[in-house]
Amino acid sequence: MVRARIGDLASLLGGELVGDAGIEVSRIASLEAADGGSISFLSQARLHAQLAATQAACVIVGPAMREAAQARGAVIVCADPYLAFARLTQWWALQLRGTSVPGVHASAVVEEGALIAASATIGALAVIARGARVGPGAVIGAHSSLGEGAEVGLGTVLKPRVTLAEACRIGARGIVHSGAVIGADGFGFAPTEGRWEKIEQLGGVVIGDDVEIGANTCVDRGALGDTVIDEGVKIDNLVQIAHNVRIGAHTALAGCAGVAGSARIGRFCTIGGAANILGHLEIVDHVHITAATVVSRSIRKPGQYSGAFPFDDNASWEKNAATLRQLHALRDRLRALERKN
Amino acid sequence: MVRARIGDLASLLGGELVGDAGIEVSRIASLEAADGGSISFLSQARLHAQLAATQAACVIVGPAMREAAQARGAVIVCADPYLAFARLTQWWALQLRGTSVPGVHASAVVEEGALIAASATIGALAVIARGARVGPGAVIGAHSSLGEGAEVGLGTVLKPRVTLAEACRIGARGIVHSGAVIGADGFGFAPTEGRWEKIEQLGGVVIGDDVEIGANTCVDRGALGDTVIDEGVKIDNLVQIAHNVRIGAHTALAGCAGVAGSARIGRFCTIGGAANILGHLEIVDHVHITAATVVSRSIRKPGQYSGAFPFDDNASWEKNAATLRQLHALRDRLRALERKN
Amino acid sequence: MVRARIGDLASLLGGELVGDAGIEVSRIASLEAADGGSISFLSQARLHAQLAATQAACVIVGPAMREAAQARGAVIVCADPYLAFARLTQWWALQLRGTSVPGVHASAVVEEGALIAASATIGALAVIARGARVGPGAVIGAHSSLGEGAEVGLGTVLKPRVTLAEACRIGARGIVHSGAVIGADGFGFAPTEGRWEKIEQLGGVVIGDDVEIGANTCVDRGALGDTVIDEGVKIDNLVQIAHNVRIGAHTALAGCAGVAGSARIGRFCTIGGAANILGHLEIVDHVHITAATVVSRSIRKPGQYSGAFPFDDNASWEKNAATLRQLHALRDRLRALERKN
Repeated sequence: MVRARIGDLASLLGGELVGDAGIEVSRIASLEAADGGSISFLSQARLHAQLAATQAACVIVGPAMREAAQARGAVIVCADPYLAFARLTQWWALQLRGTSVPGVHASAVVEEGALIAASATIGALAVIARGARVGPGAVIGAHSSLGEGAEVGLGTVLKPRVTLAEACRIGARGIVHSGAVIGADGFGFAPTEGRWEKIEQLGGVVIGDDVEIGANTCVDRGALGDTVIDEGVKIDNLVQIAHNVRIGAHTALAGCAGVAGSARIGRFCTIGGAANILGHLEIVDHVHITAATVVSRSIRKPGQYSGAFPFDDNASWEKNAATLRQLHALRDRLRALERKN
Repeated sequence: MVRARIGDLASLLGGELVGDAGIEVSRIASLEAADGGSISFLSQARLHAQLAATQAACVIVGPAMREAAQARGAVIVCADPYLAFARLTQWWALQLRGTSVPGVHASAVVEEGALIAASATIGALAVIARGARVGPGAVIGAHSSLGEGAEVGLGTVLKPRVTLAEACRIGARGIVHSGAVIGADGFGFAPTEGRWEKIEQLGGVVIGDDVEIGANTCVDRGALGDTVIDEGVKIDNLVQIAHNVRIGAHTALAGCAGVAGSARIGRFCTIGGAANILGHLEIVDHVHITAATVVSRSIRKPGQYSGAFPFDDNASWEKNAATLRQLHALRDRLRALERKN
Repeated sequence: MVRARIGDLASLLGGELVGDAGIEVSRIASLEAADGGSISFLSQARLHAQLAATQAACVIVGPAMREAAQARGAVIVCADPYLAFARLTQWWALQLRGTSVPGVHASAVVEEGALIAASATIGALAVIARGARVGPGAVIGAHSSLGEGAEVGLGTVLKPRVTLAEACRIGARGIVHSGAVIGADGFGFAPTEGRWEKIEQLGGVVIGDDVEIGANTCVDRGALGDTVIDEGVKIDNLVQIAHNVRIGAHTALAGCAGVAGSARIGRFCTIGGAANILGHLEIVDHVHITAATVVSRSIRKPGQYSGAFPFDDNASWEKNAATLRQLHALRDRLRALERKN
């Protein structure tokens, strides 16, 4: 359990404390869920009403909410309360979970010729092939494996059971969650007389700094060149990144999204959950794709794009879906009527 | 191979035997696939025609079908023949596969301070961290790992290669299939000057009794509170359950479904395959979502809801899809015509 | 690094060399990315313009392009240049990565009664249960596991961390990528008073020769009979194949596709990424399903079928989607107008 004085937290966050610095908190909670031992935060104006009602011992707010917050108790005023909350969770997690103890677990299998920094941690039953490199402070979780020549940068954490295949590399300060597979073969075949002839995937995967990759997500190796994930990209769980895809810096992809081969996604984009980007197309910077949208052609202009079928009660959907299959004919009938009138 | 006398099976299922108790069967099969050594069942009235034609040595039927079934050979009459079939498969699997031998495999890595019941089984190369608890009769498969403070209830089976992360817990009599990741970080970031600042996920995952979780499915840990899966929930393969989701008792989710952050799904719901539930919304009890539907707002009323695009031959789809992009304009043109008439 | 003389490559590929056999290449690259040390290929007429501009030392072309290619330098003329490229990558990969050294890694756990061919390779920390069989030249990657009675055919490669459950089998020359789960339970339950009673999955998975299965893909075992994947089938990453599905020879399924229980897909089909095939339906041979299509009824006629919602900028989508929910009513209004006119 973590215990902290709010005065110390205000210092940590670079915020201004209004209230008794000695108040102790032992939990971070939403305004609604907070109790008298909690620190909370108000990041969205629409939650304003919850501020007065919260039981929190202390609330982190922005300058505009200082007075309203002060009226009910202790406050830490920060320029960006949501960012302050994020930093608070980081500090909290460190207290709660500590840091990994450097060293190679006795049960790990490390081949000769692997280069492991003295400050790195190699977990139980991990497998590190020859020529792999693990940077200072990096953590390779239990049951994870690094193929020949794979590289893990400074401070990057592979959680338990991550696969980083041969000649694939990830930069510094990354996080890869359990079950992720980096560097499986891209899906490439030459058709020949009805059969499929394998195109061996000779490229790798190159992942920049500060990238997070979710559980059971796949990033395939390139066919000839590399699949490239630029710095600061965040990828959620169960996402498929096909071979030769390029994802620009600071783009985020939510769970179950898929990006087909050779697609290029720009910087500062967001791809909603279960959205699919088809292959060989290009999306410029600052594009936002709504959940479950199928992007079937290139997007040249920043903005938000959508394409989910609007759901309905089943009976209404059935009628509308049936009519949709005659939509083009309806348009022709409408046109005929217009000509008559 | 399993061999059973149908008299013994009738007793086991609490059904009434009509026919020779000594007939032996060595296979369970559908009416269509059954041979003279098979026991079969009729659970749907629409399969009635198959009853007369089946080669099965014995058929499990409901009271209404007793006479028709009897006319062709041995019968076990049960109140609910499909339920009887389910129970028969359970007995059969036990004969076929036996039970796990209690004990910790010599190759497993068990940290000091893990609490493992004497009747539990820990498979080859499993990793059990300190503070983890494994209940009586529980089975931890080969290559599975339990993080610090993780808990597995009485009789629950983790198949080979399951990850149950730190401080996550599952109740009694559960089954978790290979590749499932319970307790990876939820996808939470605070945007700051175009970059993403990580929000550490401080909550856990709490899973009730009698829950089954499919292969390569992910259930993320909560941001502050817990992600909660209530008793009796059944989740298929490759499903994504995001942080802080709550799923009510006895709800079932089919393969490739996704549930975004903080969504609440009620009890006794069914979520079809590849359906997606967007974040921060609520679905009441007894809601049924058709496969591939995107639920984009809360559902307050029980019933069935749908939203897949009706597929078609490619040429028809192309015409209708192109027209769909002008649908609102068509409506305006129709309205204009109506005014004229 | 690989180095090859183009004369030797022409022999290897059975092509006709036009140019200096002694030219050395050390890279395979696209026409666009090629440099003076690269061999490239022209497989699509539409890339014709890139031929004149490429820096490649040698280009593989079809007979029709011989003259155009010759005008710019060394050429290997092959009947099917894309197939030749595929074969070249296979040779290249062999030079680059070598072959596995036969033998059982000291850290692997092999139960008594497993049958492992002398020429097979068992990787670090793999688990092979009793009764499992591994054929000549087969490779079982690190952290992979074979359940009781599982079978791996001649020359088949399971990459690191693959699960092949009890009594499941795969034929010769297959490849299974990391994280794949073959033989988890199908999703089968009998409803009883609002709860779900498990139907134990007593069937297996039978996979033919020359099958490739992608990373984190799931193929469930059958309920009573087997789930069957015929020879030459190629399955990409994160695909869900439910119990009792049958997939015909040489069919390919792209990433994130899903096939629900008991569906039957014919031979020589292609299923696009994120497409979903609902349960208990049948698709004949030579059917091509576009990405993200939901196939909700059987397809009896070869051809291409589609069904994705056409995406749009968000504002346009919102208007069209809202109107779509009134589409059937619009049709009625149109019909009323037609009657009037």
